[in-house]
Amino acid sequence: MLKEAIYHRPKNNYAYAYSKDTLHIRLRTKKNDLTQVELLYADPYNWNEDGWLYEQKAMRLEASDHLFDYWMIDVTVPYRRLRYGFKLTSDDETLYYTEKGFYETAPTDDTAYYFCFPFINPVDIFQAPEWVKKTVWYQIFPERFANGDSSINPASTLPWGSTEATPTNFFGGDFEGILNHLDYLVDLGINGIYFTPIFKAKSNHKYDTIDYMEIDPQFGDKETFRKLVNACHEKGIKIMLDAVFNHSGYYFEAFQDVLKHQEQSKYKDWFHIRDFPVTPGPKPNYDTFGFVEYMPKLNTENQEVKDYLLKVARYWIEEFNIDGWRLDVANEVDHQFWRDFRREVKAINPDVYILGEIWHDSMPWLQGDQFDAVMNYPFTVAALDYIAKDKINAEEFAHQLTDVLCSYPANIHEVTFNLLGSHDTARVLTVCKDNKEKTKLLYLLLLSSKGSPCIFYGEEIGMAGENDPGCRDCMIWEEDQQDLEFKAFMKKCIELRKTEPAFSSEASFEIVEANTESNHLIYVREMDGERIYFVINPTEQPITVSLPIEPTGQQIKDAWTDKSIEAADNKVTMDISATGFGIVKVI
Amino acid sequence: MLKEAIYHRPKNNYAYAYSKDTLHIRLRTKKNDLTQVELLYADPYNWNEDGWLYEQKAMRLEASDHLFDYWMIDVTVPYRRLRYGFKLTSDDETLYYTEKGFYETAPTDDTAYYFCFPFINPVDIFQAPEWVKKTVWYQIFPERFANGDSSINPASTLPWGSTEATPTNFFGGDFEGILNHLDYLVDLGINGIYFTPIFKAKSNHKYDTIDYMEIDPQFGDKETFRKLVNACHEKGIKIMLDAVFNHSGYYFEAFQDVLKHQEQSKYKDWFHIRDFPVTPGPKPNYDTFGFVEYMPKLNTENQEVKDYLLKVARYWIEEFNIDGWRLDVANEVDHQFWRDFRREVKAINPDVYILGEIWHDSMPWLQGDQFDAVMNYPFTVAALDYIAKDKINAEEFAHQLTDVLCSYPANIHEVTFNLLGSHDTARVLTVCKDNKEKTKLLYLLLLSSKGSPCIFYGEEIGMAGENDPGCRDCMIWEEDQQDLEFKAFMKKCIELRKTEPAFSSEASFEIVEANTESNHLIYVREMDGERIYFVINPTEQPITVSLPIEPTGQQIKDAWTDKSIEAADNKVTMDISATGFGIVKVI
Repeated sequence: MLKEAIYHRPKNNYAYAYSKDTLHIRLRTKKNDLTQVELLYADPYNWNEDGWLYEQKAMRLEASDHLFDYWMIDVTVPYRRLRYGFKLTSDDETLYYTEKGFYETAPTDDTAYYFCFPFINPVDIFQAPEWVKKTVWYQIFPERFANGDSSINPASTLPWGSTEATPTNFFGGDFEGILNHLDYLVDLGINGIYFTPIFKAKSNHKYDTIDYMEIDPQFGDKETFRKLVNACHEKGIKIMLDAVFNHSGYYFEAFQDVLKHQEQSKYKDWFHIRDFPVTPGPKPNYDTFGFVEYMPKLNTENQEVKDYLLKVARYWIEEFNIDGWRLDVANEVDHQFWRDFRREVKAINPDVYILGEIWHDSMPWLQGDQFDAVMNYPFTVAALDYIAKDKINAEEFAHQLTDVLCSYPANIHEVTFNLLGSHDTARVLTVCKDNKEKTKLLYLLLLSSKGSPCIFYGEEIGMAGENDPGCRDCMIWEEDQQDLEFKAFMKKCIELRKTEPAFSSEASFEIVEANTESNHLIYVREMDGERIYFVINPTEQPITVSLPIEPTGQQIKDAWTDKSIEAADNKVTMDISATGFGIVKVI
Repeated sequence: MLKEAIYHRPKNNYAYAYSKDTLHIRLRTKKNDLTQVELLYADPYNWNEDGWLYEQKAMRLEASDHLFDYWMIDVTVPYRRLRYGFKLTSDDETLYYTEKGFYETAPTDDTAYYFCFPFINPVDIFQAPEWVKKTVWYQIFPERFANGDSSINPASTLPWGSTEATPTNFFGGDFEGILNHLDYLVDLGINGIYFTPIFKAKSNHKYDTIDYMEIDPQFGDKETFRKLVNACHEKGIKIMLDAVFNHSGYYFEAFQDVLKHQEQSKYKDWFHIRDFPVTPGPKPNYDTFGFVEYMPKLNTENQEVKDYLLKVARYWIEEFNIDGWRLDVANEVDHQFWRDFRREVKAINPDVYILGEIWHDSMPWLQGDQFDAVMNYPFTVAALDYIAKDKINAEEFAHQLTDVLCSYPANIHEVTFNLLGSHDTARVLTVCKDNKEKTKLLYLLLLSSKGSPCIFYGEEIGMAGENDPGCRDCMIWEEDQQDLEFKAFMKKCIELRKTEPAFSSEASFEIVEANTESNHLIYVREMDGERIYFVINPTEQPITVSLPIEPTGQQIKDAWTDKSIEAADNKVTMDISATGFGIVKVI
């Protein structure tokens, strides 16, 4: 038994409260090393004259990556307190693993040896809005979705789609344009819009805020925004705005005041100024986003700044009834700010979704006191590396998915924000080197995964484009220039996600096969008595796969064509075309 | 290289901000597996046309336990953002370890591979009061320290020390008694008193609170308490009170109201009542501490309860100027309560010490947002097991100390609350089977360790006693019944701690030798140019040890006798008696 591989630490992805009387407990061991893992557990005060009285229950092998096996169990905890350890069995050894190390027999003279989940207090349980699990997002970069009101075009607005996007040009996209196309979005099937920033700013991307309390005039006024939110809500579409609180824009009034009055400015502590005079330039003497001089970092520890930004956070919820805040560069802002942000936002409406932009391991922000979710970039990278770029094989992809799944509690995965691309990346079709079938596989994967999927505007009609500015071209509205076949595919995936329980965020997820020879992947999802097998073949070779399905009394269907399928020899055999897929439903 | 043994995860003991521009980074590897570990690191935006530009610096081998080596490094972070990975070298292999796994060459095309410490925000840095590092605590169980005012004796008070303590008897200990003996405490050298509960309660231990806003009348009134706090402050002694917020007593007004009015009580949501009518008894139908019916658990998520308890927390600081709160059963109360508790308490006085009673791994409470410290029971258990009980040997003790040291950030160790016994355990002399020399070794260890040491009343004069009630006997004030030789030893240790920099909480700590044959331990501590070697011999055999001290230009002294020592052959040879110690100072 490889003791060095065994890992457990409570109060994160390894042990957490899933509900007010259920704990999830996970253990990591060396891959293929143990034949059985059992949980020993009981209330810490469950004693008789012989010592501590524990129960024992087998854990299930949840998943494996290239080094480790992960074991998982759900435990009901009647008195909400738990002490626990693990009984580890390999071919030739049995050991007990506790907080204090390994023992040959289970100690019962003291519970201090054991791991401790002291008490399940409901307020500490991670809890995100239910509606997020049912949401398919559509990301709109407002300058480029539709121009509906030319009277508010910014100076030097170019005719819609007349040329490619550049870092500085304008096409006049606005709220009226979005209102004009709401039916398009409803038809597509999406039920949430994530807007990149809409507040007054200088650039076309608006990440350089001038005034957080004002709509950028090129998009419309507050009344138009209110109209847009209300119209969306009437159609069952949620609205999430982008909170750029890590830094302001150069033309933010407070920063301009600092530039003007320098050390005498009443705003001098609103930023992180290293010395005076403040000198913008390639190496600014104040903290910035990256080294970008026109994005001065806000001092979110300063009470005035905090009051101002929290007022902003409340204002757009209270006045306009928005449903979510996406937090830009969220991990560079202090945890204390986000704790207060959550408290204020949830006090107004506990159903507001708080989504942090974090590219790395995010457990410290997902303890229930800060964010509801983060943007799931590890999923993005793994999916593109496997299907689009051929950089990793099916097995490595399965390992990377396992790593993401085992890095967080289950209730976090149900609301994580999954994306394949955004205004900050090349478009998926372009990453796939214009291979439309691979692009489809990626969207099928996205829309059949746990979490809340998001589609960047225009992806559904086959738009291509390199990274910024290439991915920010004007939305194409002429149907003859849209890829309608691709759009039909996307609509169908969205429809399946909404109608088939096993497509949904709460369905279980398990890798069935990650084939190292033919490089295909099979995963299965299950919910409410429905089981769906997904086969993904990103290669140029057609394949034949076997799915472990027993025919007895079960209805087996191709969920894509809705045709019945016959099982034989306790399996379903299926031909999958090159860069094709299969979806088999069992009920 | 054993990849399975390698572990790192940021934002806990493995990577944390030590100051506003310094990070500490730790890596765990298999014991004796690697010959060198280097940190690769840089600002995430430090790029040129070839990719990310990182620096490289060797990590030091910090400590080892029986399975692992721990490597450590301090890094200065000018822009307060860091991405980093590890270059691992073994005899036959070099690998790069990142958040995404292992690589044969260091990837430079993207910083997303690497571990991320996104930004050092000062408000998130763990910070405890400075004074705690310089404090030697004395724990007083007020009913048993001294009876100074017989006019407030509770009914059936027994003559002082006339009989042994029982779970229910009273001897009338009070504040006046403590005031009468303050000079004794000053003479002993202590500069902090931790009081077990002083609020109105029914039992002699007062953990069953009736009224958190009142002093128990057997101890005195608020004016006497104020006099006591002021007198202590004048003598440089800090005061810490015990906050029993997990549960109230049975006779707490709110619980009595529930018993009386049942479902109609306006306090029914102040507790965790499973069903009505509330029926106390051996299996109460409400949550309790353990299964103790007379300690009903408070519902700290209820806003009224929270307001009440936070008012209590503020009141004793604002009105009486106390210096610390020790939090009873701290880990069974919700994290959200403690976050608010910290905010309110620190807003009044950031120098108030917040100490949680937690027996297990406590990292989730020590992230800077909740406690300043926890009671270091893992130290207690390890020290007693090694020196008092002969249950583990020197090497195992060194491993357990290493585990504690590597389980937390360095700034936590400087203020951790170290104890050898309390009102909840047998007295140290009794645990040592009345072996006074072993008891001395334990107190020398306690008083020469990192952290804030605490002495339970009466230990210093050689009191013995089994666990509760045995450890709660009346303090012995007749000098002819006190062990004055032991007291002189304790005074000298306390004096050394206060005068020798290398004894202090901030001095470095390193195990020099944990001898598996003679079972002795040598550790070295260093600060401000002073280095002290401590030799602990808990066995019945005298030993001779060699300390690796070069004579060149250094002054070498026996710090206990103050006699000079000569080094020869780059070492100091020293005879240590059975159950004896040696303290060698090098300046």
